[in-house]
Amino acid sequence: MNAFIKEQIELFQEQNKNRGRLLVSCPDQPGIVSAISKFLFSYNANIIESSQYSTNPEGGIFFIRIEFECPGLKDKAKDMDTQFSDIAENFSMEWKFTHVYNLKKAAIFVSKELHCLLELLWEWQSGDLMADIALVISNHENAREVVEGLNIPFYYIPANKDIRQQAEAEQLKLLKEYDIDFIVLARYMQILTPNFIKENPNKIINIHHSFLPAFVGARPYERAFDRGVKLIGATSHYVTNDLDEGPIIEQDISRVGHHDNVDSLKKIGRRIERSVLARAVKWHIQDRIIVHQNKTIVF
Amino acid sequence: MNAFIKEQIELFQEQNKNRGRLLVSCPDQPGIVSAISKFLFSYNANIIESSQYSTNPEGGIFFIRIEFECPGLKDKAKDMDTQFSDIAENFSMEWKFTHVYNLKKAAIFVSKELHCLLELLWEWQSGDLMADIALVISNHENAREVVEGLNIPFYYIPANKDIRQQAEAEQLKLLKEYDIDFIVLARYMQILTPNFIKENPNKIINIHHSFLPAFVGARPYERAFDRGVKLIGATSHYVTNDLDEGPIIEQDISRVGHHDNVDSLKKIGRRIERSVLARAVKWHIQDRIIVHQNKTIVF
Amino acid sequence: MNAFIKEQIELFQEQNKNRGRLLVSCPDQPGIVSAISKFLFSYNANIIESSQYSTNPEGGIFFIRIEFECPGLKDKAKDMDTQFSDIAENFSMEWKFTHVYNLKKAAIFVSKELHCLLELLWEWQSGDLMADIALVISNHENAREVVEGLNIPFYYIPANKDIRQQAEAEQLKLLKEYDIDFIVLARYMQILTPNFIKENPNKIINIHHSFLPAFVGARPYERAFDRGVKLIGATSHYVTNDLDEGPIIEQDISRVGHHDNVDSLKKIGRRIERSVLARAVKWHIQDRIIVHQNKTIVF
Amino acid sequence: MNAFIKEQIELFQEQNKNRGRLLVSCPDQPGIVSAISKFLFSYNANIIESSQYSTNPEGGIFFIRIEFECPGLKDKAKDMDTQFSDIAENFSMEWKFTHVYNLKKAAIFVSKELHCLLELLWEWQSGDLMADIALVISNHENAREVVEGLNIPFYYIPANKDIRQQAEAEQLKLLKEYDIDFIVLARYMQILTPNFIKENPNKIINIHHSFLPAFVGARPYERAFDRGVKLIGATSHYVTNDLDEGPIIEQDISRVGHHDNVDSLKKIGRRIERSVLARAVKWHIQDRIIVHQNKTIVF
Repeated sequence: MNAFIKEQIELFQEQNKNRGRLLVSCPDQPGIVSAISKFLFSYNANIIESSQYSTNPEGGIFFIRIEFECPGLKDKAKDMDTQFSDIAENFSMEWKFTHVYNLKKAAIFVSKELHCLLELLWEWQSGDLMADIALVISNHENAREVVEGLNIPFYYIPANKDIRQQAEAEQLKLLKEYDIDFIVLARYMQILTPNFIKENPNKIINIHHSFLPAFVGARPYERAFDRGVKLIGATSHYVTNDLDEGPIIEQDISRVGHHDNVDSLKKIGRRIERSVLARAVKWHIQDRIIVHQNKTIVF
Repeated sequence: MNAFIKEQIELFQEQNKNRGRLLVSCPDQPGIVSAISKFLFSYNANIIESSQYSTNPEGGIFFIRIEFECPGLKDKAKDMDTQFSDIAENFSMEWKFTHVYNLKKAAIFVSKELHCLLELLWEWQSGDLMADIALVISNHENAREVVEGLNIPFYYIPANKDIRQQAEAEQLKLLKEYDIDFIVLARYMQILTPNFIKENPNKIINIHHSFLPAFVGARPYERAFDRGVKLIGATSHYVTNDLDEGPIIEQDISRVGHHDNVDSLKKIGRRIERSVLARAVKWHIQDRIIVHQNKTIVF
Repeated sequence: MNAFIKEQIELFQEQNKNRGRLLVSCPDQPGIVSAISKFLFSYNANIIESSQYSTNPEGGIFFIRIEFECPGLKDKAKDMDTQFSDIAENFSMEWKFTHVYNLKKAAIFVSKELHCLLELLWEWQSGDLMADIALVISNHENAREVVEGLNIPFYYIPANKDIRQQAEAEQLKLLKEYDIDFIVLARYMQILTPNFIKENPNKIINIHHSFLPAFVGARPYERAFDRGVKLIGATSHYVTNDLDEGPIIEQDISRVGHHDNVDSLKKIGRRIERSVLARAVKWHIQDRIIVHQNKTIVF
Repeated sequence: MNAFIKEQIELFQEQNKNRGRLLVSCPDQPGIVSAISKFLFSYNANIIESSQYSTNPEGGIFFIRIEFECPGLKDKAKDMDTQFSDIAENFSMEWKFTHVYNLKKAAIFVSKELHCLLELLWEWQSGDLMADIALVISNHENAREVVEGLNIPFYYIPANKDIRQQAEAEQLKLLKEYDIDFIVLARYMQILTPNFIKENPNKIINIHHSFLPAFVGARPYERAFDRGVKLIGATSHYVTNDLDEGPIIEQDISRVGHHDNVDSLKKIGRRIERSVLARAVKWHIQDRIIVHQNKTIVF
């Protein structure tokens, strides 16, 4: 990591040393917010941002994301985690505290097309994507120069359907070695096995180059051209075993016309893919996404 | 037709009494524009707007739409039409002259949901949709009041799969009687038979309440909700025998989120449907659309 | 009010008979959410939606809007209001409870151009704008037919700079008579006096036909045309004594080009004005807007 | 210039060796298109794209941009240029032929903020901005590394109001030396003197960080924050002597809210500035812009 980025990260960590987040989901009923906010106040935490959603106020599932500022969070964090279990049990909560100071560790997978990788690195250098990009893995060599130029470890691991098992074994070893929190498939054009996906539930973010569920599968721009659509899109989603069927995080579109050929669709599409994937990754980093029954709640 | 609308139409016709349009498609080669523009100049016509497109400058198909102002067009129109055939033959053209003065005659089909119909009538009353809305046909009675309130003939023709033949026979008779140029399906929820469609090629404009080809078929909003998409859309297309597979004229989308239920998707969607259908109808009226191999060129 | 609308309103009221809202602003400090949510829970209220914002977590102003479902709200409302004052005092709050069951009473002012009025009436008839539109006041007669057709009282009050005092006296009398909560200037082209505005602070919503602060004042479309902008816009804001300088509620834009003349700018602009004003009015009705130092917080 | 970019440019030149463009403006009258297209056909040129606009078909100014494919253009270009003067004289045309093969030479001026420069270089490397970026001039050193890394000459010329004359003298000398066709001010934060501007009429493209004419002058994001606008924008325009008053080429906006502070407005704004400037530069390179009375026609 070069000096400028390191400095930015340290600044961010200093600014966020007391910043925490709490994600909760549980059956909806009166009293949840009261219990949580009383708990936080008992630690002298100030609620900075709070978003909630219920599938149905009468007997549905309730979701809440709270961002708070808590003096001395570093020392209190462990205790909060322990003490919260009482409330959690009362309300049958699934829950997670995160400390913003601790950056999430990311692995980026990429193939030949680099625009999504470059966008992520650009945002990272601008200080707008506060993760620890621990390594980049590719089945091609062409990203090596730019990645290593930023002092990020680059691993070339050949991959195709004949050597999938072996490639994934190497990849999983690296993910473990670097203690990775989540994976970004930044136009990584290899299929992942059910085993690989199972080991990383809701931790793999993919960008699909169409407005799903239109043009599931291969060659979406070619098929969009053939169909004569007037808008093309891109979709970022968590990867599940069902191809292109995972929970959608973000989508966007651009207007196209009869004068666009497959090449210009791809060019326009790259711009959408870049921004859609970058938004999805940022939301993931900021603990804004809760997955519920193959859909996302994005706070 | 009430007095205000009548007045607007007469003003429009007066302003456009010398305005003509020429649509041409033919194999691409040098000299086409030269031949056409020389021809128009020989009638002292001034080219006001001109748009062209070629699938491939080397050996592709060439399309052009020209709008021109020609003094005394009414008297010259027939002669132009006759004389143009020489050029047309030389270049193997398909072509069509239209005289803007002659409004196209429209039939609107509608079922229970009136938002698309109301939008078209609104635009029509504002003078922004210059067609002769000759009649409205519905398999429900609830549009009658608003339609007849504008002095447009309203026909209630019950329709369902058991009486489809008979209903379409009545409809076709009315279309003939009113000498209809094109049909707008403004959320008409009955399937049309191949026979009906065959009689009106590229003359039936439909609005589908999804971003095609996503959610082809029934209940698109319900399916969009189930899939958890972050954008919903609408598509206007010419009707062909293949359900929802006809040439797309226009599409648009709106952003939605996890907090939206099926009802709010429908509400948001209605707004998109209204504007997408209105744009498609206007472009059709203005002779801006050429259909080529199940796609549209929209000039 | 016609039967269909009446039925919709009654349905809405029935569905919202236990639905309340609480708006609070106060100096930021830990414990606010805890105190509020504990209070609501003590009435067995379930928090349905909650949005908050702080100008600065350390010593800034804190704003929160809470929507809650409280069984038997009608009977409890008065008591809640009374009991809340203790908390309010502790935290130096400005605050307001509203009961969704009680529709806000609106007066719409309009001049010759009816598109904004028509949009509001349309939304109202669709059940998407749940207010009690108590009367429409105009300095022209041309809206009478459509307004009275919906059984809304229509008042023609001539107005111009020479008779401003007298016109406003009549208007204020009607506002009092109908017990009006807020006023919508739906392209009402008369200037209001400081006195009129002072009597209705943050209660008058205007639509300005430009993207403020560009083109403050008269003839914005003409000036946009002269400047050659590539986007035109509309702005909805609360009216203050400083012309076009009040707190902005909502803005939107549309793309235009060199081919657009003043007339087509106006036509395009009307579409933006309609939707921008409708959104602002809906947010006002739903108590989503807090005014703070000539800006709005829109929850 | 590195090898990859050089290769791309050579490919582009090979693909466009027969591609020409003609820009014309003249008083409108019948026969213009006929005369031009006959002329082009006489050189066996095939019209690929044609766009026209008239301020008023009856006695206004007519503008046309034609892109054509002409076998052996390199050898014919000079002759076409000479021969066209007869037609030009007949119709009192201002006109210009360009040969796409000949890339325009650009100088980019930049200060401390590099996002616009980086976007232009990114597009250039992607082959989407086909100019010869001949040099970069800055009053700061921080762009040197990235610019020289692409083998583009970088010149550090200190500039401030005290040494303006001297700085511009150096700049003008470099512009002459490199035979520059146009200048891009990619967030160059120094004012240019009337003399500098006079020497480069309609050749200096600036990006202003607001939606002009809102927030003319300094610190637009701070002022946008103070005003509480709900959208922020950016404007690209040709530079004239009147600050921020030159002909607007392109504008765009993004939605913002009460939660955005000045810093986040700047961050969001950078994204708009980047894309707006890049589009303006591309249109300039492609000869799509005609300036007429302080407005642009963008074909």
